[in-house]
Amino acid sequence: MPGTRFNEREIIQLLTSRFSSNRSPLGFEDDVAALPISRDRWAILKTDMLVGSTDIPPGMSLSQAARKSVVATVSDFAAKGVLPKALLVSLGLKRKVSRTIVRQIASGLDQASREYGCTIVGGDTNRANDLVIDLIGIGFASPRHVIRRRGAKPGDIVVVTGEFGKTAAGLHVLLSRRWNPAKFRSLTRSVLHPVARLELGVALANSGAATGSIDSSDGLAWSLYELARASRVNIRIEKIPIARDAIEYAKLRQLDPNELALYGGEEYEIIATISPKKYVPLTRKIPSLIRIGKVERGTGLVSAFVGNDLHWIEPRGWDHFS
Amino acid sequence: MPGTRFNEREIIQLLTSRFSSNRSPLGFEDDVAALPISRDRWAILKTDMLVGSTDIPPGMSLSQAARKSVVATVSDFAAKGVLPKALLVSLGLKRKVSRTIVRQIASGLDQASREYGCTIVGGDTNRANDLVIDLIGIGFASPRHVIRRRGAKPGDIVVVTGEFGKTAAGLHVLLSRRWNPAKFRSLTRSVLHPVARLELGVALANSGAATGSIDSSDGLAWSLYELARASRVNIRIEKIPIARDAIEYAKLRQLDPNELALYGGEEYEIIATISPKKYVPLTRKIPSLIRIGKVERGTGLVSAFVGNDLHWIEPRGWDHFS
Repeated sequence: MPGTRFNEREIIQLLTSRFSSNRSPLGFEDDVAALPISRDRWAILKTDMLVGSTDIPPGMSLSQAARKSVVATVSDFAAKGVLPKALLVSLGLKRKVSRTIVRQIASGLDQASREYGCTIVGGDTNRANDLVIDLIGIGFASPRHVIRRRGAKPGDIVVVTGEFGKTAAGLHVLLSRRWNPAKFRSLTRSVLHPVARLELGVALANSGAATGSIDSSDGLAWSLYELARASRVNIRIEKIPIARDAIEYAKLRQLDPNELALYGGEEYEIIATISPKKYVPLTRKIPSLIRIGKVERGTGLVSAFVGNDLHWIEPRGWDHFS
Repeated sequence: MPGTRFNEREIIQLLTSRFSSNRSPLGFEDDVAALPISRDRWAILKTDMLVGSTDIPPGMSLSQAARKSVVATVSDFAAKGVLPKALLVSLGLKRKVSRTIVRQIASGLDQASREYGCTIVGGDTNRANDLVIDLIGIGFASPRHVIRRRGAKPGDIVVVTGEFGKTAAGLHVLLSRRWNPAKFRSLTRSVLHPVARLELGVALANSGAATGSIDSSDGLAWSLYELARASRVNIRIEKIPIARDAIEYAKLRQLDPNELALYGGEEYEIIATISPKKYVPLTRKIPSLIRIGKVERGTGLVSAFVGNDLHWIEPRGWDHFS
């Protein structure tokens, strides 16, 4: 029906169906855009918008929010194994913005750009009713180096770069203001000070072992679905990788730990599929990788063992429009 | 004083003073950012944010607004003589966005990308309280080819690619709703369907005659000041280039035509300074250029003859934060 609400995936599909040309060799559906600049070199581009009223939870400072906007962009580069070289920053600021606010934003952007070794080369400022920080990253890579979202093959092993659930639990702490955030520091820190897995992503790409990858910023379940759909395979999760702190918090607050790990979002791990022959040598090079499942023939579905039972995972997660 | 309001120029200075590294060879103050990618090649980058509540005048459709956001980005490339090759689009949309709205935005973006021969290679969507369209352009150029903002020299001749005042007059028509916009079609069209001077900008850069340039999107007066400040020269305007339709509208509504031409903003002409020896051959190649004044020794000031009297021009113009 015209005029009804629809979700982020549908918005992107509607938008991109209207664009008469897309010569990006990765298509619109990958974590980043690619622009060929010579026979063996691509410019890799990514933009990620942070909006004050929807993306800054209670307890997060403006400096932390600005830093997070960089982390979100860098995380997509990390998933493709590409170093972001430079950043542009487009800011929407309220009319009565103070020097203190601008200083805090600048400080968070500067901190993050130093953490990930990229230079802020330019930007734009504009008046807006809400704080808007649009971060643009650019890097360069050989086409052979970039791990595609659509490359997963049946038989591949699915790995992640870290455990899940702490961000959803941390957000739960921050939103239920009657709890003392200091008591759950490891949980709230994962919300307030997320980390992009840039070194691990580059190591994965350098290993040549990864066939497909995606960052998990839209949630573990949703990101697995995106990977499965793009690669036209199914994914079977053998063990949902839940952080111990998230399990403990779930017990305390009578929450479902699987829910926290699968449907949380804004967790910046990398999910990758590994060619089975290369798996063992890879685990020697990158011992921190966590095996969570396998790729199977299929049509884009994700299932998981919960206890001894195999369930379909729901294709839902972090959606700005739901 | 901390906490008081300040203007866009001060915001950018405060921001950039906090960034520990800026290796952009053009600095933060030029129309675009540059990122060296090899000894003789730069990536040229520009981001420009359009915000629904402040940048869309009454009478402008969403398709026109989306198209304009591309024009604003392309215009900065035009001023540097560089072809934008690809675009990224970061969208902030309201929660209850309809298919019709998304289609209109997509259609305006697609139209503009075809007009200027660039490909939309990627983007991001986010929820926001206001419509936000952040357009990012990328192109490539030899460092020798790019016209700097800081290159104007005393003795140079100042030229523009078109006359001024129609946009301010057109905005005046659209804002005073009791007038029939159809009656002033050439004025309102300059607001609703602006055009970036991409071919002229590339021709200027190819000629090798331009020493300095800027686009006029912040208004003729303000842009002249930016050019004069960046080049550490004064600029003397011999004749303010006002469009005939703007003069007629000013008479009709008892407005000051100089005010319309100097302080309007959102007019996408190129202002360039031309080496005097190369001026005559250049006018044969590009006869549409309009000579408006001369560059003089100085410290960044702009004056103009109004009638027989020389006046300092006020350093004001389009500022989102004033």
